Amino acid sequence: MKSLPLRKQIEEIVNLTDEEFAFVLEHFQQRIFKKHQIVIHEGDYAKYEFFVLKGLMKVSRLYSNGKEHILKFGIENWWVTDFEAFHRKTKSTLMVSCLEDTDTLAIDLENKEKLSRELPKMQSFFLTKTTDRYIALQKRILCFLSSNANDRYHNLLTIYPGLIQRVPKAMIASYLGVTRETLSRLTKADT
Amino acid sequence: MKSLPLRKQIEEIVNLTDEEFAFVLEHFQQRIFKKHQIVIHEGDYAKYEFFVLKGLMKVSRLYSNGKEHILKFGIENWWVTDFEAFHRKTKSTLMVSCLEDTDTLAIDLENKEKLSRELPKMQSFFLTKTTDRYIALQKRILCFLSSNANDRYHNLLTIYPGLIQRVPKAMIASYLGVTRETLSRLTKADT
Repeated sequence: MKSLPLRKQIEEIVNLTDEEFAFVLEHFQQRIFKKHQIVIHEGDYAKYEFFVLKGLMKVSRLYSNGKEHILKFGIENWWVTDFEAFHRKTKSTLMVSCLEDTDTLAIDLENKEKLSRELPKMQSFFLTKTTDRYIALQKRILCFLSSNANDRYHNLLTIYPGLIQRVPKAMIASYLGVTRETLSRLTKADT
Repeated sequence: MKSLPLRKQIEEIVNLTDEEFAFVLEHFQQRIFKKHQIVIHEGDYAKYEFFVLKGLMKVSRLYSNGKEHILKFGIENWWVTDFEAFHRKTKSTLMVSCLEDTDTLAIDLENKEKLSRELPKMQSFFLTKTTDRYIALQKRILCFLSSNANDRYHNLLTIYPGLIQRVPKAMIASYLGVTRETLSRLTKADT
């Protein structure tokens, strides 16, 4: 199992011995998905949280009028799931799908809780990652409040390096909450 | 020290003995603020995270053009600080102030980390609360993406019961990212 990126991310926060990392890995399973595959359908239980080793996932909400709002992209080293459905064991209100062939390490809630209990360092790691995610979302909220699409666009360039070359412009516009025309203006102003 | 609401909130997630709760409380100090008092100025270090026992706090960003964007209100039982500045020990980019006389229990980062280490149940509590916060912000992002001010308004009514009677309309509009006129339409449609 290609697990080095996971170890690297954990060790940015807490140190692990080889034995401890082997123990961590026992709680994960490798899951591989094809491009366009839907990993979690709306209405499904979200059994796993995925650590992206390679590939590109998308978390979005579909509306009855056919519109799709993109909440999040998951590139290499990101954690992806419907967090509410996963943590509260409720049915998913979001869709998780793959925009490229995607390799992941998947953990279910029971294993995440067991790991947190039996190796408190890992709980500390999960707490730090969740805090980081919360801080990142606060910044996105502030960008929305300032109604400044340019800020939102540059925020996206910062947090997802290289993404703009990997996904269709319509999806970038959906993530930013702007029209295609506004996005064209932003990308042109940037070149 | 009036600490019952804190114990109640912790025990919704993990059980504590009287001795354990006494140990938890040793890590907090009571901090009382007056209406209009600024608790964290932009540029300050955010030394404490506050649990609101009574009163009302506001977390906002001030812009050079005089505009204020409200990121969060903190009513009873909410946790308030500039989370980025607090957790990363950086200078605050937000302002935390009081809209009413406010009683809090305050914890600094060293004590929060010590408590998490020495009583892993508390780390579990902090992880659950941070996950809850993250899920709540995701919902707010989805409301922004749908550009539906009505959804945002009803989301606010749900997460802050009674708030609308406690703060000026201009602040509600700032939190929602709408004009005063739009807010008037929303509140009228709701009566």
